[in-house]
Amino acid sequence: MRMEAEAKKGEMDLKRTEIMAKMLNTIKLKVPEGSNSVLLKNLYLSCDPYMRGRMTNAESYIAPFTPGLPVMGYGVGKVIDSGNPNYKEGDYVWGITGWEQYSLLENPEPSTLVKIKYTDLPLSYYTGILGMPGITAYVGFHEIASPKKGEFVFVSAASGAVGQLVGQFAKLMGCYVVGCAGSKEKVDLLKNKFGFDDALTTKKSMTWYFPEGIDIYFENVGGKMLDAVLANMRLRGRIAACGMISQYNLEESEGVRNNFLVITKRIRMEGFLVFDHLHVYPKFIEVMKQYIAEEKIAYVEDTVQVLENAPAALIGLFTGRNVGKQVIVVSRE
Amino acid sequence: MRMEAEAKKGEMDLKRTEIMAKMLNTIKLKVPEGSNSVLLKNLYLSCDPYMRGRMTNAESYIAPFTPGLPVMGYGVGKVIDSGNPNYKEGDYVWGITGWEQYSLLENPEPSTLVKIKYTDLPLSYYTGILGMPGITAYVGFHEIASPKKGEFVFVSAASGAVGQLVGQFAKLMGCYVVGCAGSKEKVDLLKNKFGFDDALTTKKSMTWYFPEGIDIYFENVGGKMLDAVLANMRLRGRIAACGMISQYNLEESEGVRNNFLVITKRIRMEGFLVFDHLHVYPKFIEVMKQYIAEEKIAYVEDTVQVLENAPAALIGLFTGRNVGKQVIVVSRE
Repeated sequence: MRMEAEAKKGEMDLKRTEIMAKMLNTIKLKVPEGSNSVLLKNLYLSCDPYMRGRMTNAESYIAPFTPGLPVMGYGVGKVIDSGNPNYKEGDYVWGITGWEQYSLLENPEPSTLVKIKYTDLPLSYYTGILGMPGITAYVGFHEIASPKKGEFVFVSAASGAVGQLVGQFAKLMGCYVVGCAGSKEKVDLLKNKFGFDDALTTKKSMTWYFPEGIDIYFENVGGKMLDAVLANMRLRGRIAACGMISQYNLEESEGVRNNFLVITKRIRMEGFLVFDHLHVYPKFIEVMKQYIAEEKIAYVEDTVQVLENAPAALIGLFTGRNVGKQVIVVSRE
Repeated sequence: MRMEAEAKKGEMDLKRTEIMAKMLNTIKLKVPEGSNSVLLKNLYLSCDPYMRGRMTNAESYIAPFTPGLPVMGYGVGKVIDSGNPNYKEGDYVWGITGWEQYSLLENPEPSTLVKIKYTDLPLSYYTGILGMPGITAYVGFHEIASPKKGEFVFVSAASGAVGQLVGQFAKLMGCYVVGCAGSKEKVDLLKNKFGFDDALTTKKSMTWYFPEGIDIYFENVGGKMLDAVLANMRLRGRIAACGMISQYNLEESEGVRNNFLVITKRIRMEGFLVFDHLHVYPKFIEVMKQYIAEEKIAYVEDTVQVLENAPAALIGLFTGRNVGKQVIVVSRE
């Protein structure tokens, strides 16, 4: 029965795709006459942990997704048609788009839909190293964590889109960097590909890796990890709080018990959101282009083909299924 | 039986006091010849929440008390004899001394034993408004919390030595200030004596008192109070973490569950210890002397007579028995 049903579904999928392909060959997609809209062909979509928060009704910095409408998130696309003076047909852009083949974006702003200046770099990079996660890592490390050469830096979720960059920024500054990741494969990646000084898979061993303690913690995980780090922080340490992925699927957050150490160790813990810092982008993109040209920064993506696989890829973030930045390839061009 | 035993103990106490008085009248107390020591007659001793931490073996910024030796803490005393060039007989000082009638302090430093410049102000004030708690409130509010005129300020343990001053500093700056304290009597004190805009006894009503949220939280309590405040903080709020008195008598700290709000609200939480900021004292004392002269600052002490009552007074801090700064009067002169 089950196989029969699956076969039937497969047939229908195929049929739908054929019909769509036919339509797309015959229909010329255009924005409504006189509108400010931009019509985007979506090429790459980004799976980001913050998107989980939009699937709850919790009050937050960003509204929940609207049931019945496409999931919205960061992506890279090509402008097919435009009624907006800031964009023209053929432009490549990155920013907020929909989880769909084509998106009609009403009156997008340059802060949420950025024209890509350097199209000679891989376009998928604009969902990661050259996009929102890249600025996150850059601002969080350089502006929030106040790093100094020689300091001890710990990064959790270190092989992810943000973590891998934070570790490399810290190395470029002359810090000692240890990352935490969920598997042996990721630990190898941290040490051999991204140049972390060391890497671990369990928070239990933190004291062994940081006999002198941690000056900077780049927080991506939260909960028990934060407790373990607080116990290992040095005097006047800084915690750049970027995310707490271990908590997003819990009904109730884990209690953090070591808060008092914030006082005894004079720790500064500061939360930040990249959305407050997008003005650094023009400077950031020049720095990153240079780093990439000089091979000073490595970058690893985990790409999944076809839009239909996007939901599973997003869910996979929360169990650490992905290795590197999780990207959905909707279309290569 | 019990009354008989107590009567016997009372007799013995009396006898001991008489013997001691006789000795002190006949013995001229002096520092050892050639030593750098200072001999202090203790006048006022300070009960401070941080002292609880010295009664555990937890690793901290300050070593545990040594069993068998007197409890050490802040106090005010008169120099009886000195082998130290920084102090001479007759000087009044405040700083670290012992819970005893007289203390022989080996080679004290000006940072831990401060010569009192203005002896025309009540000497007991140097355990509070003019001493360590005063600098704590001053530095914590002005330097850690980065206040701006018109901001919404919340102070916990607000009638205590530090809290009452923080609230008044905030009012002087033009902030809206609400305090939390443990009884109706203390709430009246906050509103009528210290000029807080409002005061509450239970954290449950916080949203009512801060419909627009809290910009600055001066943290003296910790645990569930911190959770309640995090839920009511405004965007880019600051938490000056000074103490967490609700946690000091617990075997295991309460878990704080709202840490993720540090990110979504871009909160900065920063712990501080007054010991790092003692260099502001010369400026601080001039500011405070002026405030007191102009009656811009009110101050309430809870004094307990006789050294023997000191332990009970210290314990009372943790149940909020004291109303205002808890001082032990060892001797008025």
